Amino acid sequence: MSGNRDTGGLIIDPFGATLVEDYDRLFTEFGIQPLKPLLSQIPNPCAAMRRGVIFGHRDFERIIDAMKSGKEFAVMSGIKPTGEFHLGTLMTAREIIYFQQEGATAFYCIADIEAYEDNGIPFEESEKIAVNNVADILALGFDPKRGYIYRQSREERVKDLAILFSRGVTLATMKAIYGERHMGLYLSALIQAGDILMPQLKDFGGPKPTVVPVGIDQDPHIRFTRDLANRFQSKFKFIPPSSTYHKLIKALDGSYKMSKRNPMSYFTLDEDPDTIAKKILYAFTGGRPTAEEQRRLGGNPDICPIFDLYLFHFSRDDKEVIDLYNDCKCGNILCGEDKMRLVKIVVEFVKDHQRKKAQFIDKAREILGVK
Amino acid sequence: MSGNRDTGGLIIDPFGATLVEDYDRLFTEFGIQPLKPLLSQIPNPCAAMRRGVIFGHRDFERIIDAMKSGKEFAVMSGIKPTGEFHLGTLMTAREIIYFQQEGATAFYCIADIEAYEDNGIPFEESEKIAVNNVADILALGFDPKRGYIYRQSREERVKDLAILFSRGVTLATMKAIYGERHMGLYLSALIQAGDILMPQLKDFGGPKPTVVPVGIDQDPHIRFTRDLANRFQSKFKFIPPSSTYHKLIKALDGSYKMSKRNPMSYFTLDEDPDTIAKKILYAFTGGRPTAEEQRRLGGNPDICPIFDLYLFHFSRDDKEVIDLYNDCKCGNILCGEDKMRLVKIVVEFVKDHQRKKAQFIDKAREILGVK
Repeated sequence: MSGNRDTGGLIIDPFGATLVEDYDRLFTEFGIQPLKPLLSQIPNPCAAMRRGVIFGHRDFERIIDAMKSGKEFAVMSGIKPTGEFHLGTLMTAREIIYFQQEGATAFYCIADIEAYEDNGIPFEESEKIAVNNVADILALGFDPKRGYIYRQSREERVKDLAILFSRGVTLATMKAIYGERHMGLYLSALIQAGDILMPQLKDFGGPKPTVVPVGIDQDPHIRFTRDLANRFQSKFKFIPPSSTYHKLIKALDGSYKMSKRNPMSYFTLDEDPDTIAKKILYAFTGGRPTAEEQRRLGGNPDICPIFDLYLFHFSRDDKEVIDLYNDCKCGNILCGEDKMRLVKIVVEFVKDHQRKKAQFIDKAREILGVK
Repeated sequence: MSGNRDTGGLIIDPFGATLVEDYDRLFTEFGIQPLKPLLSQIPNPCAAMRRGVIFGHRDFERIIDAMKSGKEFAVMSGIKPTGEFHLGTLMTAREIIYFQQEGATAFYCIADIEAYEDNGIPFEESEKIAVNNVADILALGFDPKRGYIYRQSREERVKDLAILFSRGVTLATMKAIYGERHMGLYLSALIQAGDILMPQLKDFGGPKPTVVPVGIDQDPHIRFTRDLANRFQSKFKFIPPSSTYHKLIKALDGSYKMSKRNPMSYFTLDEDPDTIAKKILYAFTGGRPTAEEQRRLGGNPDICPIFDLYLFHFSRDDKEVIDLYNDCKCGNILCGEDKMRLVKIVVEFVKDHQRKKAQFIDKAREILGVK
């Protein structure tokens, strides 16, 4: 992980770097396709696509066709209402909004059944959280007039699809995909398949290409749903859903994964901006023990959560990200100044978001039918 | 099974006879209680109770209390809409109607989700069958004004209870109760638990004693539901459901069990009366090879489906059943005359029922919301 400084002025493409090393098995063993070869065909790729943050897909060609020809298509994803928007849910929300802006009918699911089955959160409680989550996505630019936001627990079509799909799904299948889990988790997997295929029901205009933007950890759901789409093909004429896969953003504190158990590993969009600033300033980086060493040997952006924050969310300019990557590698920039600049951007974004969000709370209540 | 003739004129109680032999294990091993000791406390026991056809129970004391004190209680059972009413579904229907007449609010479930999961019957098809089934129970005397007839697939409260209950139910539990089955069957077991506990929801007046009259083969569902009632006690204040168990009526052709695969083993209430008459006349009996032998040695009503028909359904008079039992045992009556008399009773009942049923088809459609 050290001494990569001698790039001889060559500009390294950070957007593909970790991809080949870490994600190769996904392509060869699981049938996920790399997105890069399709990039030039996508009419208006989003930053996460251009930067390799969205690195893989299944059947995304179908979505490109729809985008190009103006045919109807859908984007579907959701949030488990267990807490405030964080950098992961922000990623998915932005993907949905991107596809909506590119012409998709957008489906945003509040996965309150999953929040109950998986995390034990009662529906009365997740309802309150959901109001916040919906206000967040509205503040980020989701257009409810060209989309459908719903709670699983109130969406009978989703439950009915789960009931339909469950027939003939063996325990062996469930265990192979999800491991040995309790009935609630298996049921919530079936419900999630219902979520993904609901946009293709007659009520929503019938079969259509549907893209599900997810983190790579969600691929089992995608495979399971694609199998079900095929099994119920004759009844519904389902088109197997397409998917895109984004990388997971690194934990701020250098730990394995952002986690609620570890408040310094992440921040939410609802947090006090001062606290967020502190978390960023305390964050782990790819820097060297001393400024002198870093100037001499360069830093390592590939392991750096601060670089990830720019890459995933907080730099609007691809060129800027590339420069940042190379300046870090070459020791031209130190972690302190890098963090200070990021804090300013993030705090400004968060303040602006919180202000907007407050204005969307009533609309969110209305959409969810919450008093 | 032979030579039991020497009863010396002693009147044998046929209502308790097979009970002790065959059902003893249920009492000792499964915690089912015999009904007989409670019989004298039941205000107005039905024929099936008096005759030992309903032979066992769980927590039936609670129902007796409610009957005596005039407190609110419920009866809940249902039918899987896979075909016309037969002697088994007739049994359950009569039990529900009995409890309704004794003051219970009656819940009659059309288990169309189970018909789909277990038998692969599409909802469009089971809907048509359900119309017939509901007309049957109305013709038998079910009062829809003091009851609730519903389809599982249209009853969101039942599905929502299933979703709630599924959390924390382990695969080990499901396998222990139902064996290794596909997801649809497990889901339909959870839905059935929802059916049984729905009468205790706020929408229906809250917690109340509920009796579920079933065949002994349905006890796994009862145990499972009682466990769930306890687990969700704090949220819903459920009273664990009570149950009664009836014996299974013998197959007409002497085979192991009435079965659709074997049309001579049973008849439906919808069948042509001539065909029904033929099935009865061809039925297996507990008789001897020759009339002479039967007069000398007596018949065996304990293995006789003809006797069962009188005992379960077609004799209104307990004394008559006892006489029949003893006359058979003593060789005073032969199978031919016994069958002829039964044919007359059954054909009259079926014709009358079919006539009444025709008048309830529209009402059944209305109740089910079927055009």
